[in-house]
Amino acid sequence: MEFDLIELIRRHTGQARDDVRVGIGDDAAVLAPPPGKDLVMAIDTLVEGVHFPRGTAPADIGWKALAVNLSDLAAMGASPAWALLALTLPSADAAFVEGFAEGFAKLAQPHRLALVGGDTTRGPLTISVAVHGFVPPGQALTRAGARLGDAVLVTGTLGDAAAGLHALQHPPREDDGRTVLRGFLVERLSRPTPRLAVGTALRGQATACVDVSDGLLADLGHICVASGVAAEIETALLPRSSALLELYDDTTALHFALSGGDDYELCFTVPAARLAEVQAGLARLGCGATKIGRIVEGEGVRVRAADGSSLATDRPGWEHFA
Amino acid sequence: MEFDLIELIRRHTGQARDDVRVGIGDDAAVLAPPPGKDLVMAIDTLVEGVHFPRGTAPADIGWKALAVNLSDLAAMGASPAWALLALTLPSADAAFVEGFAEGFAKLAQPHRLALVGGDTTRGPLTISVAVHGFVPPGQALTRAGARLGDAVLVTGTLGDAAAGLHALQHPPREDDGRTVLRGFLVERLSRPTPRLAVGTALRGQATACVDVSDGLLADLGHICVASGVAAEIETALLPRSSALLELYDDTTALHFALSGGDDYELCFTVPAARLAEVQAGLARLGCGATKIGRIVEGEGVRVRAADGSSLATDRPGWEHFA
Repeated sequence: MEFDLIELIRRHTGQARDDVRVGIGDDAAVLAPPPGKDLVMAIDTLVEGVHFPRGTAPADIGWKALAVNLSDLAAMGASPAWALLALTLPSADAAFVEGFAEGFAKLAQPHRLALVGGDTTRGPLTISVAVHGFVPPGQALTRAGARLGDAVLVTGTLGDAAAGLHALQHPPREDDGRTVLRGFLVERLSRPTPRLAVGTALRGQATACVDVSDGLLADLGHICVASGVAAEIETALLPRSSALLELYDDTTALHFALSGGDDYELCFTVPAARLAEVQAGLARLGCGATKIGRIVEGEGVRVRAADGSSLATDRPGWEHFA
Repeated sequence: MEFDLIELIRRHTGQARDDVRVGIGDDAAVLAPPPGKDLVMAIDTLVEGVHFPRGTAPADIGWKALAVNLSDLAAMGASPAWALLALTLPSADAAFVEGFAEGFAKLAQPHRLALVGGDTTRGPLTISVAVHGFVPPGQALTRAGARLGDAVLVTGTLGDAAAGLHALQHPPREDDGRTVLRGFLVERLSRPTPRLAVGTALRGQATACVDVSDGLLADLGHICVASGVAAEIETALLPRSSALLELYDDTTALHFALSGGDDYELCFTVPAARLAEVQAGLARLGCGATKIGRIVEGEGVRVRAADGSSLATDRPGWEHFA
């Protein structure tokens, strides 16, 4: 049955790329990397009940399994090329695989990403995807490189995915006319948009970059550690969606924005002198980026409330096994 | 805790390679592929209770998770370079990770394989490894290409791993003086040797190649399907270890050799005229390869018993979800 499942996935995700010499169906895939580029690769796993609730639509799982990985490529400024899929399933469930492949393919296709190999096994529902992409040599964005005085920015809005999970877990008892707002937040959770165009546009512009998967405080914290600096952000500047602000009080919305994971926005730093130019460039790509603070001396991430006071941030974001 | 686990693994498996520009610790790894080579990549998953028994030593799991993947590279004739690891664990068990990393590193080091990225998550014990290697352009060995009259060969011996699993599941009631023999078979199960040197030596020699992971009948069957041919093998020619033959009767040993998976030997085809030369070359590498049959017209794998009769082969090997 293994081969039928993989074939089903192949049919959905079949994506012609000249650089695939041997695709799915042999012991391994054979690819022709473009000359003179750096290869960027990442792997991420989704486990049922940990990274997505039981009962999540298979197509949403397929989309998200790829999205969280493409988001890692985006954070490095890489353009995607190929993926490997390791799918562990309790049983050979063709309907599940069909849905999964459809969601996976829907995200893969506009990015010209080819699924080139895979392995299906029996076991608790777990999906690992390894993605591969390219950057011009030496141009990958890393977490190290943020410098004193740099502006700290994020794309899109923060906290939506955490609010979406909360909304799923706390459905209203009766129709309150806010179903559309909740739907927006749930969509942000289940179909995150990897910011690939932003990532490539930031090559040579951003001094450091990370994707917001574990929560802003945790992920910006990674930039601080890797760069040997601190960051100071202001709550009043955090971009939050109108859905989030309408459905949740300010304290809760702020908590989601600071500590909620799964947004898959990019958080990055740019020299203050380049701020306007970078923001204008990203706006032309259709993805706004908001300045939320700056890089300062010290360690860690400090949060300043609207009244100027410091916010205690004892919940630095979701860590696996935390 | 995620970062501590990955750091623990990094420390054990730290392997200097000039081509790793950014290793573990960022959103993705950045590598400099060698110019003018084809990139070969595969992913394989091990699930506790499916691919290894509960209670398997962590170091054995670490070794095997990498070995089954390196075996895929070997079957393509590729030289290994980099790996990504997705480790899903029920809890942040440092002792498990320490043992796992030790076994993984022990196999990685002699092959100069660098672990360049990873993801640890909470969930049922599941390990996916993605491996990457290189071949000169166009020289990857595939399953397609076997031609009428080619000799069919396998490296090493067959059936040991299946017998090792049987021995583990049926321990003797008292010491029967054959502990060493059983130990050999169990070692073959838990610490398989990927035939990387054989794989690279077969570039330009073998017409088709596959690794024996699902059992000889199933895997040679893949070559037949991909090449549009049939294979005829002779039971009398199947290489079987003395441990296998001493501990099991001939029928059982034959069943293990034909249908047992997990041996990770290579099965390949070479033009008959080159047989002696190829065998001599592999013998010089310290890994014998035995001729077990030949490629004929038709479909599927036929098995001829010592008396010349055809063997019914209704159990074609272990398929996931079968």
